[in-house]
Amino acid sequence: MRLGDLQTPALVADRQGFDANVATMAARWPGAALRPHVKAFKSTALAAELVAAGHHAFCAATVREVLGMAAAGLGADLLLANEVPDPARLAPLGELVRTGAARVTVAVDGPETIAAAAAAGLREVFVDVNVGMPRCGCAPDRAGALATAAQQAGLTVRGTMGYEGHVVGIVDRDERAAGAGTAMRLLADAHAAVQAAGGGAICTGGGTGTWDCNDTVTELQAGSYVLMDTAYDALGLPFVPAVAVVGTVVSRDVGGGYAVADVGLKALAMDHGNPTIDGAAVWFCSDEHVTFSMRDGRPLPPVGGRVAVWPAHLDPTIAKHERIHVVDRIGRDVPVDLDADVLTTWPVDLRHW
Amino acid sequence: MRLGDLQTPALVADRQGFDANVATMAARWPGAALRPHVKAFKSTALAAELVAAGHHAFCAATVREVLGMAAAGLGADLLLANEVPDPARLAPLGELVRTGAARVTVAVDGPETIAAAAAAGLREVFVDVNVGMPRCGCAPDRAGALATAAQQAGLTVRGTMGYEGHVVGIVDRDERAAGAGTAMRLLADAHAAVQAAGGGAICTGGGTGTWDCNDTVTELQAGSYVLMDTAYDALGLPFVPAVAVVGTVVSRDVGGGYAVADVGLKALAMDHGNPTIDGAAVWFCSDEHVTFSMRDGRPLPPVGGRVAVWPAHLDPTIAKHERIHVVDRIGRDVPVDLDADVLTTWPVDLRHW
Repeated sequence: MRLGDLQTPALVADRQGFDANVATMAARWPGAALRPHVKAFKSTALAAELVAAGHHAFCAATVREVLGMAAAGLGADLLLANEVPDPARLAPLGELVRTGAARVTVAVDGPETIAAAAAAGLREVFVDVNVGMPRCGCAPDRAGALATAAQQAGLTVRGTMGYEGHVVGIVDRDERAAGAGTAMRLLADAHAAVQAAGGGAICTGGGTGTWDCNDTVTELQAGSYVLMDTAYDALGLPFVPAVAVVGTVVSRDVGGGYAVADVGLKALAMDHGNPTIDGAAVWFCSDEHVTFSMRDGRPLPPVGGRVAVWPAHLDPTIAKHERIHVVDRIGRDVPVDLDADVLTTWPVDLRHW
Repeated sequence: MRLGDLQTPALVADRQGFDANVATMAARWPGAALRPHVKAFKSTALAAELVAAGHHAFCAATVREVLGMAAAGLGADLLLANEVPDPARLAPLGELVRTGAARVTVAVDGPETIAAAAAAGLREVFVDVNVGMPRCGCAPDRAGALATAAQQAGLTVRGTMGYEGHVVGIVDRDERAAGAGTAMRLLADAHAAVQAAGGGAICTGGGTGTWDCNDTVTELQAGSYVLMDTAYDALGLPFVPAVAVVGTVVSRDVGGGYAVADVGLKALAMDHGNPTIDGAAVWFCSDEHVTFSMRDGRPLPPVGGRVAVWPAHLDPTIAKHERIHVVDRIGRDVPVDLDADVLTTWPVDLRHW
């Protein structure tokens, strides 16, 4: 199958870019030093590529991601890096542990999540610490007490988790590194308290944006680096954009002012703003369309031509699609090369909840 | 099943609100005067409710929506109100027409879409006119010539279509009505030209926002009114918000400053901004979470409590979910009433492309 044969809108990954991204990250965070976050790509087929690259431990954000990874035989070390206070919801994960089908660890940040984990039959947890972003995680000075409470509930504490999500997207590298440093000092102190309370040695956190300025964690939780997006690309990281939504031009202004392609709000995450089309100015997206004009006097693509639309935010964009088509290389021309071979297709099988 | 039994995040519709919205719209646009737009809700089960309310003709935005409606036996009069220039993509719709399995009409706005419709075996079209929004649709002064071209290609022109999407969301009612008036004068002139060229009498367009100020169209293409969203709710229309994403509080700031529920970017469309939680200030959404505080000294819900998160934009929110759970009434309290019965579940079966 060729790129030109795909029904649009089609989520397409660039094999060359993906391979380069995986290699760049693995050189700095090899093997178990990296715990890739499946929430970014929600595909066991893609995760299997990361196993082949040497990474056997994964993060997940949902119960369904953990169950899907285990069902795909990728359950060597799965961390639900999120809080679930409902024992019934966690019970299937406890069952994976009981039967030995997978190793599953969950994050806890308070008495409710500790109680739920224990009641669900889970055995291992990380103490999740808030290192500056108002989301989940306990106050740093409570981490030691929570480690004690978890152990009193019969749980093994593998270590400490903290995600500096409030700084990973800062464009200026020095400012980002400084923010990560502040956050990671909080994590290091909390981790010392967890260890003093009998917790384990693993310190887990970080992300794509702090891959080269987080020296605190013993394992990095990065996911976006595999395929990237335009928001992360603005940071000047050595990872290359490798995912786009390919669309068909379905209409054109007779006056030549703009063209309209069939890639809209339902095919793209918009929380980080408009997507990008090479050489074009994106005017706006609506449910099923993107309207754009070309810059610098370039010609508009014809009706029926295809364009690559680069998403601003990877994770929720991928979550809208059923599959990722992998081509050797996504061209950066408008219209795109229709003859590019589709090498394989990765189902986005970890979607929903 | 009760609301409290649903796994979260759960897309939930309010039966009382839905019924009221359907009745209000049907009183002004009864039966064939309304052509509900399935792109808003993407569910044949919901569409069947509208058939029961007297509406037998529907709009769709994708080929998949048309095929799904036909497969569900709801193909009495389906309009693909969108441009598809690829005959191969349209061929399954032509097959529906050939076999008499459904009546399918498509929008055309230029020679490419006319050629594609004819090549695919379709027989009926509307001439789609741009009435002010830079998206699809021909220039108004070309409508007559396109009607002629379509007939020369062997197609029957049922009439003229034009959507005033650039004005349907204007909050001020007078300004919205004035914008609709300007747009509809363009449509009326184009429609006269289409009819003079041998086209049919139907003039189709409009939406929820202009339901009471569009006197030009002979059938209204509204979809959002059935379940509404916070953006449309700001217009003061007589339709009530009837869809929310119910989430579980998974974490809480020890200091009581904020709570975090499991409804994030992947469960909500963000193109119209943050969602709303009754009595709360929404701080931000991330992939799987919404962080919020309570206003006016109200207590934060407990960890494990449930909250209703009201989306800013209906269509792309629903498109993220596999199903809509219908309850008698979504409470506006925080936390929500866990005892509300789930009356039925509507699969969101028209998703993707």
